[in-house]
Amino acid sequence: MKKPLPTSWLQGIPPYVPGTSKDTIMKRYGIAQPIKLASNENPLGPSPKALEAIEGIKGAAHIYPDPDAADLRKAAAAFFRRPPQQIIVGNGSDEIIDLICRAFIEPGDEVIIPGCTFSYYNIAALACGARVITSRMNDHLIDIAAIAENLSEKTKIVFVANPNNPTGTCLGKQEILDLTAMVPANTLLVIDEAYAAFVRRDDFLSATNLIEDHANVVTMHTLSKSHGLAGLRVGFGIASEPVTETLYRIKPPFNVNILALKAGEAALYDSEFLQQTLENTWEGLDYIYKEMDRLGIDYVPSQTNFVLIRIGTDAPRVYEELLKRGIITRSMASYGLGEYIRVSVGLPNENRAFIAHLEEVL
Amino acid sequence: MKKPLPTSWLQGIPPYVPGTSKDTIMKRYGIAQPIKLASNENPLGPSPKALEAIEGIKGAAHIYPDPDAADLRKAAAAFFRRPPQQIIVGNGSDEIIDLICRAFIEPGDEVIIPGCTFSYYNIAALACGARVITSRMNDHLIDIAAIAENLSEKTKIVFVANPNNPTGTCLGKQEILDLTAMVPANTLLVIDEAYAAFVRRDDFLSATNLIEDHANVVTMHTLSKSHGLAGLRVGFGIASEPVTETLYRIKPPFNVNILALKAGEAALYDSEFLQQTLENTWEGLDYIYKEMDRLGIDYVPSQTNFVLIRIGTDAPRVYEELLKRGIITRSMASYGLGEYIRVSVGLPNENRAFIAHLEEVL
Repeated sequence: MKKPLPTSWLQGIPPYVPGTSKDTIMKRYGIAQPIKLASNENPLGPSPKALEAIEGIKGAAHIYPDPDAADLRKAAAAFFRRPPQQIIVGNGSDEIIDLICRAFIEPGDEVIIPGCTFSYYNIAALACGARVITSRMNDHLIDIAAIAENLSEKTKIVFVANPNNPTGTCLGKQEILDLTAMVPANTLLVIDEAYAAFVRRDDFLSATNLIEDHANVVTMHTLSKSHGLAGLRVGFGIASEPVTETLYRIKPPFNVNILALKAGEAALYDSEFLQQTLENTWEGLDYIYKEMDRLGIDYVPSQTNFVLIRIGTDAPRVYEELLKRGIITRSMASYGLGEYIRVSVGLPNENRAFIAHLEEVL
Repeated sequence: MKKPLPTSWLQGIPPYVPGTSKDTIMKRYGIAQPIKLASNENPLGPSPKALEAIEGIKGAAHIYPDPDAADLRKAAAAFFRRPPQQIIVGNGSDEIIDLICRAFIEPGDEVIIPGCTFSYYNIAALACGARVITSRMNDHLIDIAAIAENLSEKTKIVFVANPNNPTGTCLGKQEILDLTAMVPANTLLVIDEAYAAFVRRDDFLSATNLIEDHANVVTMHTLSKSHGLAGLRVGFGIASEPVTETLYRIKPPFNVNILALKAGEAALYDSEFLQQTLENTWEGLDYIYKEMDRLGIDYVPSQTNFVLIRIGTDAPRVYEELLKRGIITRSMASYGLGEYIRVSVGLPNENRAFIAHLEEVL
């Protein structure tokens, strides 16, 4: 029987594999209070200022949100030190990824994506009919030389997460400068700084500083991690005006929820909460490193709020055993890292519970 | 200088023209409390059950929303009387429109859109490189014969809003059956029922009843109007499983805000609020009709929560004069209806204020 045919490239799109939810583990194993360290959520909860803002605006939930997100962009402009007209707000940075792909990719265009990174770049690019070129990693580092080798006249976009998810690694200032220099002016260089707030290395350079001189550089940012608003979906794209104007042409007019607009604005001004988040994260990371060293387990030092841990060939069993005990980490199987799990930094007691259970199931 | 080039079809996309906001009028004319009757928002506010739900869930704003929207789909399944697997939830029905276009349109495919309807179908289709065929209207009615004339082997999607925005008109049961019969099985027939809750004609048929026998029929629904949640962005697509499965392949995993998921679920079960909304709308429509008759002003009888009113060649002046007095209606200039304004039904006192000011400025 005849039926409507989707695009010819749709069948090649792999599914996104989300972290296992607490609900799933509560139902499957009858565990009252699982500990979820799977999705890099903020263990301190949402910014308290954001919660106050929700309280103040919720009575206006029947009103369409501001299509221009003017107040939120003003707050973002102050936070990221770029003018509001260089900022576009998305329904999470997932939507910024989609808008970039949809505005720039024609079927057959090439998109370069490092071999082990956030999986939604691939999904979004393939959904637009792109030919995705996977560039090899240098161990757990994004390899800019490998990206350079793959550049061609057909390269429309290069995606680089800095720091990178799920490896937690980070390119330094010189590498970002080199990358920006090597990508041609007519190829978009999209640098996803979702985890940039957590970076401790001294030589980190946010690519927002390069936008002024590079009309092809786009940075992405999110309030999901450092500001504790994963559930509200607030992401940003920052780029030169020609690029943001292009993205605005296809942005759905009411793409960001009215509660998210206000909560996001309040969270950006909540520097106290951000500071607490960073302290909790860095202390948690140092604790996990120390325990890994004690247990003789290999891990990848992280510039984010999660750690990639090498369990070995036993990783699938360890992951499942932890689940049964109510400790939800992230399986790395869908990332081609079968010997690893990824664990988000939790509260101190959550980190301790993770270590205690891990030690028992090893 | 070289720069990244957007898709070749991007320049042809017209901007979406939203209703003027209260803020704009407050600032422009120093009016303390403008009355906005421009965007078909629910004048009763959000469903109170939805507000309670927001209160209950807001502490989880740091957690990613359920990618499957399982609880909300269960509520929608009960409300729309279709199984959950035939339902997909969007960030407003705008996102459902986008997903349909992105999943099915290859550049050059044809999309048929009636000449005077919701403008986002055109924007979304053009963003995918579609060739949009505008089918003529029959006065203010969608003309299914005109749609039939435009069908070709290249027609991928037909969009029909029923009831239609901004005309407020509605196709009857037989026309929907005829339309479904005439659209080939390999062409998607997308019927947008955003305003269906408000319909008073006896012979209205929701196309959700046709999904079982027509694998190419998709209906769209929203909680923005009848359930007072325009600010939260909750829309639904309902279709046969092959179609919903196709849309799920490109749906961003966390597309609906966690507060919107819970609020939407609560609103769908809030039948008391829906009933109040319908009574307020129908009484308001009848009041506006009576006053238009008294003033000798032509209008299009409506099956929605707004009315298209023929002011005449003076419409731009009347629209602006109303703005200056703090009455925000919708200019129809961007819809090619230069002699008209569209007014949403408000609270009784808002409707009276609209009439009083209109009478003065005429």
